[in-house]
Amino acid sequence: MPSYKAPLDDMRFVLNEVLGVANLRAIKDFEMLDDDTINQFLAETAKLAENVLAPLNIKGDQQGCKHDHNAKTVTTPEGFKDAYDQFCAAGLTGFACDPEYGGLGMPQVLNTALSEMCCSANMSFAMYPGLSHGAYHALHVYGTDEQKNFYLPKLVSGEWSGTMCLTEPQCGTDLGLVKTKAEKQGDGSFKITGTKIFISSGEHDLTENILHLVLAKIDDPSTPPGIKGISLFLVPKFLPDASGNPGERNPVFCGRIEEKMGIHGNSTCEMNFDGATGWLVGEPHKGMKAMFVMMNEARLGVGLQGLALSEVAYQNALAYALDRKQGQPIDQKAADAKLDKPAVSILQHPDVRRELLTVKAQAEGARMLAYWVAMQLDISLKDPDEKKRKAAKKCVDLLTPIVKAHMTDNAVDNTNSAMQVFGGHGYIKEHGMEQFNRDARITRLYEGTNGIQALDLIGRKVLKENLMPAYGRQLRADLKAAFRQKVPLYPLASLACYGTRLEARTMYLRARVGIARMLGGKTADKAMRDVGGIATDYLNFMSYVVMGHMWVKMATVANERLAENPEGKSFYQTKIDVAKFYFDHLMPRARTYARLVRKGSGSLMAVSPEAFAHDQTSIGEKSRPAE
Amino acid sequence: MPSYKAPLDDMRFVLNEVLGVANLRAIKDFEMLDDDTINQFLAETAKLAENVLAPLNIKGDQQGCKHDHNAKTVTTPEGFKDAYDQFCAAGLTGFACDPEYGGLGMPQVLNTALSEMCCSANMSFAMYPGLSHGAYHALHVYGTDEQKNFYLPKLVSGEWSGTMCLTEPQCGTDLGLVKTKAEKQGDGSFKITGTKIFISSGEHDLTENILHLVLAKIDDPSTPPGIKGISLFLVPKFLPDASGNPGERNPVFCGRIEEKMGIHGNSTCEMNFDGATGWLVGEPHKGMKAMFVMMNEARLGVGLQGLALSEVAYQNALAYALDRKQGQPIDQKAADAKLDKPAVSILQHPDVRRELLTVKAQAEGARMLAYWVAMQLDISLKDPDEKKRKAAKKCVDLLTPIVKAHMTDNAVDNTNSAMQVFGGHGYIKEHGMEQFNRDARITRLYEGTNGIQALDLIGRKVLKENLMPAYGRQLRADLKAAFRQKVPLYPLASLACYGTRLEARTMYLRARVGIARMLGGKTADKAMRDVGGIATDYLNFMSYVVMGHMWVKMATVANERLAENPEGKSFYQTKIDVAKFYFDHLMPRARTYARLVRKGSGSLMAVSPEAFAHDQTSIGEKSRPAE
Repeated sequence: MPSYKAPLDDMRFVLNEVLGVANLRAIKDFEMLDDDTINQFLAETAKLAENVLAPLNIKGDQQGCKHDHNAKTVTTPEGFKDAYDQFCAAGLTGFACDPEYGGLGMPQVLNTALSEMCCSANMSFAMYPGLSHGAYHALHVYGTDEQKNFYLPKLVSGEWSGTMCLTEPQCGTDLGLVKTKAEKQGDGSFKITGTKIFISSGEHDLTENILHLVLAKIDDPSTPPGIKGISLFLVPKFLPDASGNPGERNPVFCGRIEEKMGIHGNSTCEMNFDGATGWLVGEPHKGMKAMFVMMNEARLGVGLQGLALSEVAYQNALAYALDRKQGQPIDQKAADAKLDKPAVSILQHPDVRRELLTVKAQAEGARMLAYWVAMQLDISLKDPDEKKRKAAKKCVDLLTPIVKAHMTDNAVDNTNSAMQVFGGHGYIKEHGMEQFNRDARITRLYEGTNGIQALDLIGRKVLKENLMPAYGRQLRADLKAAFRQKVPLYPLASLACYGTRLEARTMYLRARVGIARMLGGKTADKAMRDVGGIATDYLNFMSYVVMGHMWVKMATVANERLAENPEGKSFYQTKIDVAKFYFDHLMPRARTYARLVRKGSGSLMAVSPEAFAHDQTSIGEKSRPAE
Repeated sequence: MPSYKAPLDDMRFVLNEVLGVANLRAIKDFEMLDDDTINQFLAETAKLAENVLAPLNIKGDQQGCKHDHNAKTVTTPEGFKDAYDQFCAAGLTGFACDPEYGGLGMPQVLNTALSEMCCSANMSFAMYPGLSHGAYHALHVYGTDEQKNFYLPKLVSGEWSGTMCLTEPQCGTDLGLVKTKAEKQGDGSFKITGTKIFISSGEHDLTENILHLVLAKIDDPSTPPGIKGISLFLVPKFLPDASGNPGERNPVFCGRIEEKMGIHGNSTCEMNFDGATGWLVGEPHKGMKAMFVMMNEARLGVGLQGLALSEVAYQNALAYALDRKQGQPIDQKAADAKLDKPAVSILQHPDVRRELLTVKAQAEGARMLAYWVAMQLDISLKDPDEKKRKAAKKCVDLLTPIVKAHMTDNAVDNTNSAMQVFGGHGYIKEHGMEQFNRDARITRLYEGTNGIQALDLIGRKVLKENLMPAYGRQLRADLKAAFRQKVPLYPLASLACYGTRLEARTMYLRARVGIARMLGGKTADKAMRDVGGIATDYLNFMSYVVMGHMWVKMATVANERLAENPEGKSFYQTKIDVAKFYFDHLMPRARTYARLVRKGSGSLMAVSPEAFAHDQTSIGEKSRPAE
């Protein structure tokens, strides 16, 4: 059975030493922060994740959730309810929530560490409180005071949970196609009717009530078509009575739960709204704006799931590699000498090391990235200095698609690599390695496929909002610090070079699209298709630059500590060694993407839709040359 | 539910037009071959694959195999037995087998096409006859005449099936660690005792008897240690009586079937040999040689499974992309214009095309490679000209690890890409896309992990046997033909350049290792570790060169046909268009690997085994600088 141990040293290194999270105490809301508080919180949460959540992971996969169509209930796997109660009792549902509604008011960056541990231990479980937090956030930003006072304390305490109801059978990415309709009632409420699919935690037995946040179109001729006509509604499973207790059952029911590849412990529901009572959240027709509040948070959370699965898969692959004895070292292959020597641990084999170091370097780089972005999020929300807030927000906006897409693409690859270390045993369920891969696979898909992330990055964040220059300045500043400090990484120059190429290409793309749009017509069309054609390659190129950047940040601090404090030597030396591995073996992947971002859509669009199929234009008897 | 349609036009293009398989009729055994026979065979087999095997695929995954411990039986999924009988009745179990034992005596290259169709339709099913063929092959090469006359007709007809029993709990890659022992009996037979695991088709209900080919060590002081002491034994499930009918039950039983990630329709068994009667196949202690006969065939077969799954996943992703309407074309993004336009098929989106064309280009290139290598195998076995036989064998030996590793790495990525086209729906079981990915995952692991393939390629095929120069000549000859024929692929030069770099690097590596070995000691050790460190990158680099080569072969013929025969225009034009896509979007991946093969093992071995773990050397309270 797989196991999980929270990588506390690595977390503390990033939180305390690289980011200096305790410095957030300069912000009024975070005055209580210091390293001891942070370390204590990490240690306590680690215990819950390791001892309560992790042991339920494989069982959750085996049992899955059970839907009783007649009773209209969904039962979560054995032990989930009890674990959820412990999670709530520890105050973790409200960890980063507003103290005004009962939350602990801790920064997002620490909530990120909390989520990482829970997702590593049991991703299916962690999704239940995770989605509630998205609902909390949307209500906190867009709800009326009355709504907030009434609902938020229940979400913060974890007594009630929340969902995001966006997707319908005919629409996923393109929410303009939403059909669910909302009919206004005399009392200001709405009757919501429609079918939503893929609703994570849509129905379950962990909480006494569930608050659905639902995108729907108001059934009124004045509603604009497409995404500009979408509104957000709050639809509780039980309509609360005046004292806030769950009352009458609202007609919103789980139609079925999906049979999925993984995350079996989380209920993915089709939800049928049969004239269910709901209330508008925010302004009419401004639902997409509110939805994006949930969505951006969710995207960072999904990236984090990717990191979490990479980490736990790594831990188990390493344990196996240390334990499994097979073959002789490649440098002692003299045929006769080997015959009666005992086999060595497979970690001795360079190719196994390459596989493991790839996962390790990507997991640690991803942690640095996720925590850094989360800390920028805290600054963007709370720093007293408006300039700092704005700068931090730009950073978060630009990097959100990178966190989501790169960390989840890596998660699929990393969990595959970790399985590969197990050889054939990796394919057998009891080792749990294949579950990590199946669970990881959803992360590339939900909250916007990674293709959509790529379009968001290049279309909105880079071309429209021009967020690259600010990031480029940060990269150069960190590189300068590393050079000044003589960080012993010979390939720093290569990162500087890739960074420059990325910025230069970005400037070119903006100029080209700008001019093409002025010219209009076919020139503009072609320019935009080219942008679409390279979107994923652009995201990948930038991802390797950003991950290299994260390793520079870590190596710089490790280098400083090595000089200051010889006691910690081997930990810090390893950080520098793994940074070297990253630059040696992973950074060169940027070479390919640096080339690919110079392509366009020519060879993509040259193949006609008919020609995609093999047998549309048969070469059959007729066209084959005669014998 | 997913569907499958055999890509007959593409298969005929490769078989008849590029390879000219009918030319094999110059070989005595293949006199009956012509294009019509080939086309008819393809069409007939396609019907069986499409109509009989494919409909059982998803059911096989859901039902899996059932082990009854008391009855000592394994039941395959509903419909498998009936399908197997139809498969035998069509003569397909003996399709490429020796007519002397009842086979049809067809060439391997056509058997490859047959296997592709069956694996696309139902990989779990296709493994049953697939493994029998390996057993047939080993017996055919190493069996005595008596053994061959007695057993082969039963394997050829499919009445009996075969297995390969290699792996044990303590040994997979390193077969020197085999513990199963064989005690010689007075009558020349052996008593076999031990436990084998991961035995595909180890026990099932499709055939009346099962012939296990088992690696074991003769229990005798003269047996050499390690792999040089391994012998191959034939152990039937039922001991045949003199007339060849299954008689007494031999004590070899299925202990359990494994719960796996995928290929649920195939029984993966732990087999317990409790003093089971067996007979030596080939010479004592020469088991590894006989095993490699099965293994090399199996490796080509596994690569083919990779192609087969890429193909069927592509077909279903394409159908979905044509059907699914979502969003507006990126070149018509003018915000107001789009609001009331209907959504377009997602194939209109460049990023979806990129995903689909990647799968298409890799599947078609893989088909060309698999069929080409299979035809070389036919030539290596049967051509009257010894020089041709030897040259062909070199080609097969060199390319076997590429076929196995590259085509299966691609299969995991391609089935993932095909899922990605489905968005969230790809994660839902009913669409069958996630099954392709789960089934594909085993192909990177079995018959030697892909890391082992990389070591086989660089260690044995390149450094020891020096097979690269012969391949390099073939590549240059095909490139020259393409240049002469003015194939409109501007990046032919880039392939020529990568080919040259690959050959040059190979020469350097051979020279370096040669000199290092003469010097011995640490220099030799370091050189070998460096080889181990770059093995996978070398395999990847060469794979992209080889796949580019395959696209040049196809584009050259397509170009010729376009000139000759305007009727077939769009088919051939598409081949050239997809070749262009390959060179534009996939060939640049070689850039990264061309760089990585210049690395060594330095940054792999710098990290000590202890440092791989996160928490071995705590930075804890002590080493963190005081506040």
